[in-house]
Amino acid sequence: MSSRKEILVFDNILSLRSWRKQFIKQDKQVAFVPTMGSLHEGHLSLVKQASQHCPIVAVSIFVNPAQFAPNEDLNEYPRTLSNDLELLHSLDCVDAVFLPKVEDIYPFGIPLDVEKQKGAFVEVKGKSHQMEGKSRPLFFRGVSTVLTKFFNIVQPNCVFFGQKDAQQCIVVRTLISDLHFPIEMHVGKTGREHDGLAMSSRNKYLTPDQRNYATTLFKGLSAIKNEFDQGEKNREILLNKGYELIENIAKEVRENNLGFELKLDYLSLVDPRTLEELQEIEEEKGAILSGSLYVGKTRIIDNLLLNCTL
Amino acid sequence: MSSRKEILVFDNILSLRSWRKQFIKQDKQVAFVPTMGSLHEGHLSLVKQASQHCPIVAVSIFVNPAQFAPNEDLNEYPRTLSNDLELLHSLDCVDAVFLPKVEDIYPFGIPLDVEKQKGAFVEVKGKSHQMEGKSRPLFFRGVSTVLTKFFNIVQPNCVFFGQKDAQQCIVVRTLISDLHFPIEMHVGKTGREHDGLAMSSRNKYLTPDQRNYATTLFKGLSAIKNEFDQGEKNREILLNKGYELIENIAKEVRENNLGFELKLDYLSLVDPRTLEELQEIEEEKGAILSGSLYVGKTRIIDNLLLNCTL
Repeated sequence: MSSRKEILVFDNILSLRSWRKQFIKQDKQVAFVPTMGSLHEGHLSLVKQASQHCPIVAVSIFVNPAQFAPNEDLNEYPRTLSNDLELLHSLDCVDAVFLPKVEDIYPFGIPLDVEKQKGAFVEVKGKSHQMEGKSRPLFFRGVSTVLTKFFNIVQPNCVFFGQKDAQQCIVVRTLISDLHFPIEMHVGKTGREHDGLAMSSRNKYLTPDQRNYATTLFKGLSAIKNEFDQGEKNREILLNKGYELIENIAKEVRENNLGFELKLDYLSLVDPRTLEELQEIEEEKGAILSGSLYVGKTRIIDNLLLNCTL
Repeated sequence: MSSRKEILVFDNILSLRSWRKQFIKQDKQVAFVPTMGSLHEGHLSLVKQASQHCPIVAVSIFVNPAQFAPNEDLNEYPRTLSNDLELLHSLDCVDAVFLPKVEDIYPFGIPLDVEKQKGAFVEVKGKSHQMEGKSRPLFFRGVSTVLTKFFNIVQPNCVFFGQKDAQQCIVVRTLISDLHFPIEMHVGKTGREHDGLAMSSRNKYLTPDQRNYATTLFKGLSAIKNEFDQGEKNREILLNKGYELIENIAKEVRENNLGFELKLDYLSLVDPRTLEELQEIEEEKGAILSGSLYVGKTRIIDNLLLNCTL
């Protein structure tokens, strides 16, 4: 039917490793895009970029238990494997999909209670405790651990991550350089819906009413960026623009009795190198402007880069 | 003068990496022996074993700050580089020595106060807190972190560790399997002096009187192993043999007013897979019998394997 590139699907480490080996001898570079599945245009765009950098492209789909807290949505997280494989196939540039089993990645099991965990864990100190890490204290430890394992299994030359998870990009960049992985990191732009909402697998949780108001965070961040672009560099003045706009929309939601609330988790304005909160933005250094908003029970995140890259 | 194999000495990561690369293309296996220098016969025996397994042998010499506690001997630790290089040269089987600088391995610095540390750290949970980890709580975190970095830099096919550091062997084996490093691990037997004292760089700290009594730990462990070999499997009965023997010698040292004391830190009898303390030894599972003794200010460690391997 289709003459598209065949995708090899590996559900175990040994077979993936032996597939990988041939490209070492052939001296062909391998790009790797780790995902949790439930793929959207943001992921697909990363995969396309990967294929422009390397002749071989591997994608993993693995909902990583270690990055969920006990109160989070590990069980509800959307799993849409056959659709994901179809989407990847349609791109006509993916060579392999890695679908490991939890017990292969965590042979000692992975209890959500951290005190009961056994085995090797990796953390990036100094960049994992603030911003997203404040709301999700073990999130980046889970991310760093699973990526260390995946990097050793896939042995990619390049890896691709989305700007949407800005702090994750910084943590992974530090992980790679500090643990001396021989890997080049690339960051792809945040994919957005027509109204600006950052694409996310968790957007599937939103009801139609919630979806209408889910752009609130992006609107707040955009208002702040607008001020910054006009020359304002002071934290308080900048963030207040966002707080006001978001609070006004949250009030509208409350007054309309829509059956859910908008609740801001945080807005953050940090140095892109140290992730320390900034009082004044220096033009040459720039800043990462980010935030998180609860839309009903769904927590969405977004960020804009002020004169910097990740 | 000598027609012995030339040793390439690398003091930076980039040049080591580019040396390493040729063997990937040539499909030649590389063995790696990480050391803290101050080499003795135990190290040399590991290096010889390494050369029997792989055509290429790399040795690192790096006193790793991350595995020393603030009260420990980081500054005093013996550094004997030119002698080390001579010894390695005399073996005629070493291809490369890696002498990284602290700032290359820890670009964020490595303050001994763990709260101030930044960057990526690795720990093996469940196997790092007992035995040596009880006396040295961050020791194995330091070991796991530096080895993860070294494994990514050297990319060895095989690594070699000494049985003398039994718990380290178990931790490293778990690190390798759990982080999925494509590395084969080998354990070499403990090198011993003519009187049984386990070889250690720290033996250099001992005065002649202390050296005479430093065999006390080995004697205690041997007495216990002797009971085990004769059929005794009960923890209390076995360990009491050791406690008694060591206490008798410690008493002798006190009575002779030698100006130092022998002080047992611990004796331990654990399951070789879980490192849990055992009440009864099961013949098929065996046990690791280990201990630590202060000889004056010098802390020595030793172990014997009861019907098991590492």
